[in-house]
Amino acid sequence: MQAINASIGFDAKMWRQDIRGSLAHAAMLAHVGIISADDEAAIRKGLADIAQEIEAGGFEWSEALEDVHMNIEARLTERIGEAGKRLHTARSRNDQVATDFRLWTRDAMDGLAAQMLDCVKALVARAEEHAGTIMPGYTHLQPAQPTTFGHHMLAYAEMLWRDRGRMLDARARLNECPLGSAALCGTGFPIDRHMTAQALGFDGPTRNSLDGVGSRDFAMEFLAAAAICATHLSRLAEEIVIWTNPSFGFVKLSDGLTTGSSIMPQKRNPDAAELVRGKTGRMNGNLMGLLTVVKGLSLTYAKDLQEDKEGVFDSAENLTLCLAATAAMVRDMQPNTARMAAAAGEGFSTATDLADWLVRELKLPFRDAHHVTGRLVAKAEGLGVDLPGLSLEEMREVEPRIDQSVFDVLTPAASVASRRSYGGTAPENVRAMVAEWKGRLA
Amino acid sequence: MQAINASIGFDAKMWRQDIRGSLAHAAMLAHVGIISADDEAAIRKGLADIAQEIEAGGFEWSEALEDVHMNIEARLTERIGEAGKRLHTARSRNDQVATDFRLWTRDAMDGLAAQMLDCVKALVARAEEHAGTIMPGYTHLQPAQPTTFGHHMLAYAEMLWRDRGRMLDARARLNECPLGSAALCGTGFPIDRHMTAQALGFDGPTRNSLDGVGSRDFAMEFLAAAAICATHLSRLAEEIVIWTNPSFGFVKLSDGLTTGSSIMPQKRNPDAAELVRGKTGRMNGNLMGLLTVVKGLSLTYAKDLQEDKEGVFDSAENLTLCLAATAAMVRDMQPNTARMAAAAGEGFSTATDLADWLVRELKLPFRDAHHVTGRLVAKAEGLGVDLPGLSLEEMREVEPRIDQSVFDVLTPAASVASRRSYGGTAPENVRAMVAEWKGRLA
Amino acid sequence: MQAINASIGFDAKMWRQDIRGSLAHAAMLAHVGIISADDEAAIRKGLADIAQEIEAGGFEWSEALEDVHMNIEARLTERIGEAGKRLHTARSRNDQVATDFRLWTRDAMDGLAAQMLDCVKALVARAEEHAGTIMPGYTHLQPAQPTTFGHHMLAYAEMLWRDRGRMLDARARLNECPLGSAALCGTGFPIDRHMTAQALGFDGPTRNSLDGVGSRDFAMEFLAAAAICATHLSRLAEEIVIWTNPSFGFVKLSDGLTTGSSIMPQKRNPDAAELVRGKTGRMNGNLMGLLTVVKGLSLTYAKDLQEDKEGVFDSAENLTLCLAATAAMVRDMQPNTARMAAAAGEGFSTATDLADWLVRELKLPFRDAHHVTGRLVAKAEGLGVDLPGLSLEEMREVEPRIDQSVFDVLTPAASVASRRSYGGTAPENVRAMVAEWKGRLA
Amino acid sequence: MQAINASIGFDAKMWRQDIRGSLAHAAMLAHVGIISADDEAAIRKGLADIAQEIEAGGFEWSEALEDVHMNIEARLTERIGEAGKRLHTARSRNDQVATDFRLWTRDAMDGLAAQMLDCVKALVARAEEHAGTIMPGYTHLQPAQPTTFGHHMLAYAEMLWRDRGRMLDARARLNECPLGSAALCGTGFPIDRHMTAQALGFDGPTRNSLDGVGSRDFAMEFLAAAAICATHLSRLAEEIVIWTNPSFGFVKLSDGLTTGSSIMPQKRNPDAAELVRGKTGRMNGNLMGLLTVVKGLSLTYAKDLQEDKEGVFDSAENLTLCLAATAAMVRDMQPNTARMAAAAGEGFSTATDLADWLVRELKLPFRDAHHVTGRLVAKAEGLGVDLPGLSLEEMREVEPRIDQSVFDVLTPAASVASRRSYGGTAPENVRAMVAEWKGRLA
Repeated sequence: MQAINASIGFDAKMWRQDIRGSLAHAAMLAHVGIISADDEAAIRKGLADIAQEIEAGGFEWSEALEDVHMNIEARLTERIGEAGKRLHTARSRNDQVATDFRLWTRDAMDGLAAQMLDCVKALVARAEEHAGTIMPGYTHLQPAQPTTFGHHMLAYAEMLWRDRGRMLDARARLNECPLGSAALCGTGFPIDRHMTAQALGFDGPTRNSLDGVGSRDFAMEFLAAAAICATHLSRLAEEIVIWTNPSFGFVKLSDGLTTGSSIMPQKRNPDAAELVRGKTGRMNGNLMGLLTVVKGLSLTYAKDLQEDKEGVFDSAENLTLCLAATAAMVRDMQPNTARMAAAAGEGFSTATDLADWLVRELKLPFRDAHHVTGRLVAKAEGLGVDLPGLSLEEMREVEPRIDQSVFDVLTPAASVASRRSYGGTAPENVRAMVAEWKGRLA
Repeated sequence: MQAINASIGFDAKMWRQDIRGSLAHAAMLAHVGIISADDEAAIRKGLADIAQEIEAGGFEWSEALEDVHMNIEARLTERIGEAGKRLHTARSRNDQVATDFRLWTRDAMDGLAAQMLDCVKALVARAEEHAGTIMPGYTHLQPAQPTTFGHHMLAYAEMLWRDRGRMLDARARLNECPLGSAALCGTGFPIDRHMTAQALGFDGPTRNSLDGVGSRDFAMEFLAAAAICATHLSRLAEEIVIWTNPSFGFVKLSDGLTTGSSIMPQKRNPDAAELVRGKTGRMNGNLMGLLTVVKGLSLTYAKDLQEDKEGVFDSAENLTLCLAATAAMVRDMQPNTARMAAAAGEGFSTATDLADWLVRELKLPFRDAHHVTGRLVAKAEGLGVDLPGLSLEEMREVEPRIDQSVFDVLTPAASVASRRSYGGTAPENVRAMVAEWKGRLA
Repeated sequence: MQAINASIGFDAKMWRQDIRGSLAHAAMLAHVGIISADDEAAIRKGLADIAQEIEAGGFEWSEALEDVHMNIEARLTERIGEAGKRLHTARSRNDQVATDFRLWTRDAMDGLAAQMLDCVKALVARAEEHAGTIMPGYTHLQPAQPTTFGHHMLAYAEMLWRDRGRMLDARARLNECPLGSAALCGTGFPIDRHMTAQALGFDGPTRNSLDGVGSRDFAMEFLAAAAICATHLSRLAEEIVIWTNPSFGFVKLSDGLTTGSSIMPQKRNPDAAELVRGKTGRMNGNLMGLLTVVKGLSLTYAKDLQEDKEGVFDSAENLTLCLAATAAMVRDMQPNTARMAAAAGEGFSTATDLADWLVRELKLPFRDAHHVTGRLVAKAEGLGVDLPGLSLEEMREVEPRIDQSVFDVLTPAASVASRRSYGGTAPENVRAMVAEWKGRLA
Repeated sequence: MQAINASIGFDAKMWRQDIRGSLAHAAMLAHVGIISADDEAAIRKGLADIAQEIEAGGFEWSEALEDVHMNIEARLTERIGEAGKRLHTARSRNDQVATDFRLWTRDAMDGLAAQMLDCVKALVARAEEHAGTIMPGYTHLQPAQPTTFGHHMLAYAEMLWRDRGRMLDARARLNECPLGSAALCGTGFPIDRHMTAQALGFDGPTRNSLDGVGSRDFAMEFLAAAAICATHLSRLAEEIVIWTNPSFGFVKLSDGLTTGSSIMPQKRNPDAAELVRGKTGRMNGNLMGLLTVVKGLSLTYAKDLQEDKEGVFDSAENLTLCLAATAAMVRDMQPNTARMAAAAGEGFSTATDLADWLVRELKLPFRDAHHVTGRLVAKAEGLGVDLPGLSLEEMREVEPRIDQSVFDVLTPAASVASRRSYGGTAPENVRAMVAEWKGRLA
């Protein structure tokens, strides 16, 4: 029973939050006259000493005392006597743990949001550097149109910016303090919940005590935001794995971010990217886990809810690792511009430029231009050349009105330069967008 | 191949959004001079006619044309000729589908947010009606303290309010228009993406074309918000299932929300509640499905992303059903106040009131009061009576300073009345909170 | 990088399997002449010593050495020199870890299958004891027909028996040895894979080296079997939570399996049941996690696969706890037969018995009998009595041919006794099934 | 309420199983004398007529009648009168739907197992054809050792063979007949459950009636087996997507399995592979959905269980599509052997062959051979050559005992030929394994 019941094995992680919460609670109890100023001072001193003990590694966690809360309170009473027994007045483990867990999650959110911003900065810096570095733009992993490495980096900046928005929205919604909900119904003591809420940095107290102790949607929302962000990171990680394969050879990572082996020291296995990609699994799993736990749970607190923490801790810690690894890879990777440029010219990647030329210059309806282009591509493929490899005569056999100026649009460089619509791939757009980002990040 | 490839079987659902998007695109093309005003007028007329055809059920969807977009465009060209072929200028199926899908999801979000508000209203109305209706407050489904049916209803109001907040945050984040991202890189045509974005009610265009066609986090976030809301609804549904069991007998549902059988016409199976509870499964499944699809997907568009829609459609439609069923049950259920009150007195549910009295009146430290209460409860249990059933003498055997006034706090009514801390269960608090809710909802 | 890369934090758990695998590998290398008998003896001695070190807690795991395999091999070479460096001949970390992980999972499967059997035994024992203990049989948690506690216990015996079957099937499928697949392509050394497979208790070697190092379906299948079993356990746990609520009062758990509080010592929170129910979450999460990890992973080994272990360890350990807690609760719970019997008579629970009587005795078609019964139930409900409370005259107003003998079928005892179809609820059936189970379990 | 409650929208799919089940039930009722031979004949005729009506598309499904069972029974009574009303004797919708659903799932399992076998056959055929076709073997998607296309194909044959085993094990476990469990407790009618079980191809009747109507682990196990198989298919699909990218250019798919566009007719988007990969999402989702539904559900039948079918139908239908698409792609894809061979020589892919040579010929301990090889690779990399590009002198600067014979092991062809350990990549092994497969498949 103790093996299945005790949570100290994982919730000790919240000791800082537990002490913070108790300090705020004690200060409030003294303020409204429920405990004396002397008791509060003793509690404050006692908790500070305990914090030092824990920091110093000298605190002995007891499984018999079940959880972080009972461990600290028992130690407090051991140290300061009677006053320690008064700390829990007008409080219950139910609102205490709900408060501690929100504080922990909020701290994690703050750290992760900062890391997301850091990733965005890394991406924007690489985008500035490579606004004009041509690479293939793929759909279906088949060459579709040439793009630039900078533009590609900015796509991920957008994703991570939204990931950060999700985290901040979740933080704002979480930021109400359940302390004072007591076991489930509130209390008859004249406590001041606004005071504790403010002391702990919350926007205010929660408004319903049953909800305060029994709800965990803040944790589910955090896990969902983490899983979505991890999914984005998995996409970039997949690309890095593909790009570092020698058939692609688009980018190279430093030794610090790869592993080799004593036998193949030249091998640069993109382990960091693979782990980022793989860790999406546990993010999805933790989310699914908590959704399962809370499904069909009657109000209010049930022991099932003890299963809420490990997943949150695990997702937070692993997303921290993933974001750090991603930022490092983004800053580190060295594009092989020649390989990228060569690949960008493959696969008739300027066919849409040709079609657009036909619309613009010859006024063909789009669908007809599409069709003519298709015939030209087929002709080129038959001849074993790329589009610019067709002679003007060969082109005219398909559409007699084509003239020499068509060749101006058939190179990857011309293609990317032309796509100047808002959000488009043109280097000048990418540079403008980098400037916009710098403003936003400043 | 056609069987696995075609999407018309499900994406026809987006025909309204597709036509809306095409109208905005055509108007913009004409505005910037890419197509003529005549072409635009023909397109407008043609699309309006097609909308009528579809509404009237006379449109023949063709699987050979694969999807809703090609079906409508082909029909348009059939009806208006050349102009129809010009509609797709400076656009691609990739940005078109991304736009349509965002429009559909946004519409769904608006409808669901409105339903959540309606549920909150229903809960607040019942809370007002039953601010003083005593029922047991459970932890671990064991009686812990008396609460009120009104307070319980407000707990769900809080959850649904946050669910609505999540939906609105997701909507705000979704509300950028990918139209004009073209296939993946934007276009060289002088399009005005701000104009189409505005015409379609978006806050602006997306800022990166690769991201515009290749990202689906808006759909994942929607699915997560839906799953979390469904999880909340499953909790209330579980409670309704338990409450309508005759051993509880707390509430009764009307025939309209239950099913019986010809053989047991009195049986009121809470099918609606069970379906609400059960449908959490598909919500979780749809979320997990899309997270799996996008995991490790290289940029930009890949056919995998065609798997994004059915889950979103399914979650939206089923959450609509669940919210409607929940609002109906909340409005319908008739509490059996006598059964609730009787159950609220069971299980020594005023033990914490006694402990608080000992702290307040006799100045016992909380942990000591806890201990004395435990002994009194054990004594009462041994005598087979409830706490108020102990005589003053019996109480004084445990703690001699107890006096007659203790009995004032030992009834469920006194217990709930006393819990006046902010967010607490006291009827006056519940009424005040109802007033606060009315202001918020006005 | 080290933080994200090292696995020693969790894979040290496989040290026994790693040593077992190395012993088998060394013995084979010596047998076929790749290493000398002396080397093999040194390795054997060295590994035995290391095992002792680890058992005694004196082994220092180094994160710089990354994983359990390198830690042990490095220590071996430290202890025995040159021979240690020969151990890894014709082996790679890829096949080594695949082998170790299979061995660990197989051990876990064996333990869990034994626990499932133990649960079945506990259920069968209670079924024997309570073959005739009447309780309500619910559909929709509404009384449908009386059943017995023994029959109810046997329902779970069936589920757990199938859970065990799933575990054993998974074990049989897992039981092929990847050792000798080397890095991915096998080896040119004249190794004897059948010998190592046999030494390690496998049915034989895997048949394809790429599959041997790159597949993890054995782990996914294990996680699925664990999740399904946990889901079954969650159903019984839910019932125990409901049954111990005082409005039900069907069963009582001992103090050893519940928790109270100092303040409410009489409270028996069914924490063990709630934890069993809640832990379904992480089982589902671990399964979803690994499915996500492997989705879309190109062959063969990728670092993503390092994410395979923690979920398996976690599911195995938690399912062990859940099965132990369940077996303990099954053995412990004390049915309150009076409360169960009373509830079994509620809700016109013998209506189908009445309908069947009408079919059997009056030869009414089933659907007509259904209809007549419905009218009788409605009449009884209107009069505020149960079915046996109707007089013969009142019955005959609905169906004149009813006679006195109908009353023989209207009690819960008669109802359960009558349901003698194979697998039915009749006490004599339950006793026969218990006998059948005993034979199967012997 | 009707919208959320009715299931006819999806369960009509089970009409064949429903009629089959009713025929078996009626035959049994007549056999034991519960209904007359005439009634049974009328029922048989009536159901046959209804089957024809449905086949012909002339049956009108009514949502008011809720489900497939009531629709068919109502129509039967409409056609044959009284006898129709007797069909439901000693049966309930609960055991009827459980039986129908098992029959449907079993049919699906049979079809899928056959498709898996077909995939294995396709893989084995390609393996035979390409037993000697050299390609790179990757770990971390980095070249590790040369392998062959045939060996690679056989890796998937192993996975699919296990997938089939999982499906067959699930089928065997499912194959017990719940018919006769009635509503939940069995029946007092003298039915013969063994007779109906046999008639419907089951191994026997289920042994506990509560379990018979209330369990769905057969469906969960099916969904898990489907998800694991889909995960395997997603791996091959990912490889096909990568292999068809022009930087790889390893294989080419026919037009029938790819899509192009009118504008880029040469483009061969591997849509089929992408859909196979993407459909893993819904498989995982359906599994997670049902696990969520059943979690914490008290016995026996609850309406939540109506949510069991759509996921099973969806997984079955989509896995059918995925297996068909995979078999087609396997049969279709044309390897570019030159591209594969060239890539197989890259990245010092014979380094382990060199290390093994040092162990075998110079008796270096493995770890030392590893180290020497590392130095040789580094030297080659520094000189910009591959391993065979080093001169003997250059090699001897690192290890003086190396002689000319080392060059025999440094080519991809020599490497693959040498890996003759059981399950290894050597063409002769692959051919032997193909022969073994043919025996198994015969």
